[in-house]
Amino acid sequence: MSIPFTIPTEPQALIDLARNGNRAALARLISKIEHRNQDTEKLVELLYPLTGNAQIWGITGPPGAGKSTTVDRLLTHLRAKGKKVAVVAVDPSSPFSGGAILGDRIRMQQHSGDSGVYIRSLGTHGRHGGLSHSTKEVVLALDAAKFDIILVETAGVGQTELDILKLAHTVMVILVPESGDSIQMMKAGLMEIADVFVLNKADRPEADKLMRELTMMVGLGAHDENSWMIPVCRAEANRDIGILEMLVEVENHQQYLKKSGKLEKKTKEFLKEEMVDILTAELRSSLDSILKTDGGRELLEKLYLKEVAPYQAAKLLMGNS
Amino acid sequence: MSIPFTIPTEPQALIDLARNGNRAALARLISKIEHRNQDTEKLVELLYPLTGNAQIWGITGPPGAGKSTTVDRLLTHLRAKGKKVAVVAVDPSSPFSGGAILGDRIRMQQHSGDSGVYIRSLGTHGRHGGLSHSTKEVVLALDAAKFDIILVETAGVGQTELDILKLAHTVMVILVPESGDSIQMMKAGLMEIADVFVLNKADRPEADKLMRELTMMVGLGAHDENSWMIPVCRAEANRDIGILEMLVEVENHQQYLKKSGKLEKKTKEFLKEEMVDILTAELRSSLDSILKTDGGRELLEKLYLKEVAPYQAAKLLMGNS
Repeated sequence: MSIPFTIPTEPQALIDLARNGNRAALARLISKIEHRNQDTEKLVELLYPLTGNAQIWGITGPPGAGKSTTVDRLLTHLRAKGKKVAVVAVDPSSPFSGGAILGDRIRMQQHSGDSGVYIRSLGTHGRHGGLSHSTKEVVLALDAAKFDIILVETAGVGQTELDILKLAHTVMVILVPESGDSIQMMKAGLMEIADVFVLNKADRPEADKLMRELTMMVGLGAHDENSWMIPVCRAEANRDIGILEMLVEVENHQQYLKKSGKLEKKTKEFLKEEMVDILTAELRSSLDSILKTDGGRELLEKLYLKEVAPYQAAKLLMGNS
Repeated sequence: MSIPFTIPTEPQALIDLARNGNRAALARLISKIEHRNQDTEKLVELLYPLTGNAQIWGITGPPGAGKSTTVDRLLTHLRAKGKKVAVVAVDPSSPFSGGAILGDRIRMQQHSGDSGVYIRSLGTHGRHGGLSHSTKEVVLALDAAKFDIILVETAGVGQTELDILKLAHTVMVILVPESGDSIQMMKAGLMEIADVFVLNKADRPEADKLMRELTMMVGLGAHDENSWMIPVCRAEANRDIGILEMLVEVENHQQYLKKSGKLEKKTKEFLKEEMVDILTAELRSSLDSILKTDGGRELLEKLYLKEVAPYQAAKLLMGNS
């Protein structure tokens, strides 16, 4: 590893080093993307042609479902197969989620000496959808840095957290027997996001009931022979039970995505969202500039005084630029 | 109350009826805003000049903190003072939050015969920041319909839920002794959103510890004599203890906002966000249209094949419109 003061700040040099396995360069690259400055666009433009080789997996579940134990076990098995794996833990810092992710990161330090594993937490810069945008671009950097699998982990506590997972090819949803009844889960659109269900802590007495409900729910969801039938895996992550079976199901799903053409469809949807994110960020920043001009301030004042209405003001403002 | 088939669909007639206290018209008006169609812009333009009289309060807290019992008690006291109150319960349907809000709505039906109370849940149309946008416009409708106080309630489980509260003048954060230690709350930016802390279930033995921590935290937060010093109220909502004291603190905060000029500042910030929301929605919809044209499809294909990069493609796409 090179010593810190040798890390270049020039985008191309930084990317070259990160692709050659330099961790300090990769860390700086990701920080630059996360903090967004004038280099971000340049970095993304340079990174993008180098991407497309990694599998992007998502993992979510309620607090206490055993997400990080599961990730920890997955890492061990994937490393045994020679895969390079990056973990991106996204923590939009819900004030009430208990901040478990930081503690989890500390636990995963058993992999910290392993050059085939990279673990990174993304923080609270995420106002106005920005966290979801940064996460996408960080994943591009990890893909370009030649990781085989990029695991994006969120605590499934709100809409922002689930939106972030839309970048993943395959999403694993970890549940535990106490996760509540299946009707509430259906209502909540979990079926829409899950590709693989994992019933963790499956040795508990109430596990069979949830297993039956999940299996029935999944059966109701699949409509024809070309649909993906969401598998339900039983696991006890803390005893390393069921993890290899999960990996088989994820691999099945990846095969399904390729054969059905859905990988291309998902990727295009992802690219469209990336463009929306880029344009929204530009919109917001040009709106900020306009509102600092005399004309902008005057218009905001008129809006405040109700001399114009919001839709009209918005149009006038953008015509003003 | 008029029978359903007499409700007009024409925007101005609908608004006039809603302002005259017709509940069915108000419900239809809100549904129209929530479901967003070609009338939405027209409705908002008509509603906006009629707004600005209501106080907008936000209320949040972790599941189980007693938010709806508190709201229920607040309603009773506010009605006793002759205030007309609307409650907007925003439920972005976190798959893991347990769907408590629906059950809460049922409990609040004790107010359902009272023409001075209106309770409405907003659902899951909220992709891509849309829920936050709709909530703002629903609040405009309730303000125009002459409610004195509009109480926006969210389960504080994620970033989306907290973003929604940015429309409120005064935000109450309800905590319970088991809400966890103050360091985690500080980290999570609760201080940034709270104007009044309420320690509910304050009769529990562990309450004193959290009370001390909150008081200390709040003391660290206020920097000069012009800052608002966040009060910490003790309450036992289920026994109606501490609710009137909460109301006094909310009233103090409203006075503070007016005197300090922060009400104007908050309102302008809110109007700016409304314009960003409007323009983002327009951007998204024009992007959708462009991507359906031959030129748009071709560009997405080029992006998919990595012949262009995302920032460049986004610019080309908007130049294309």
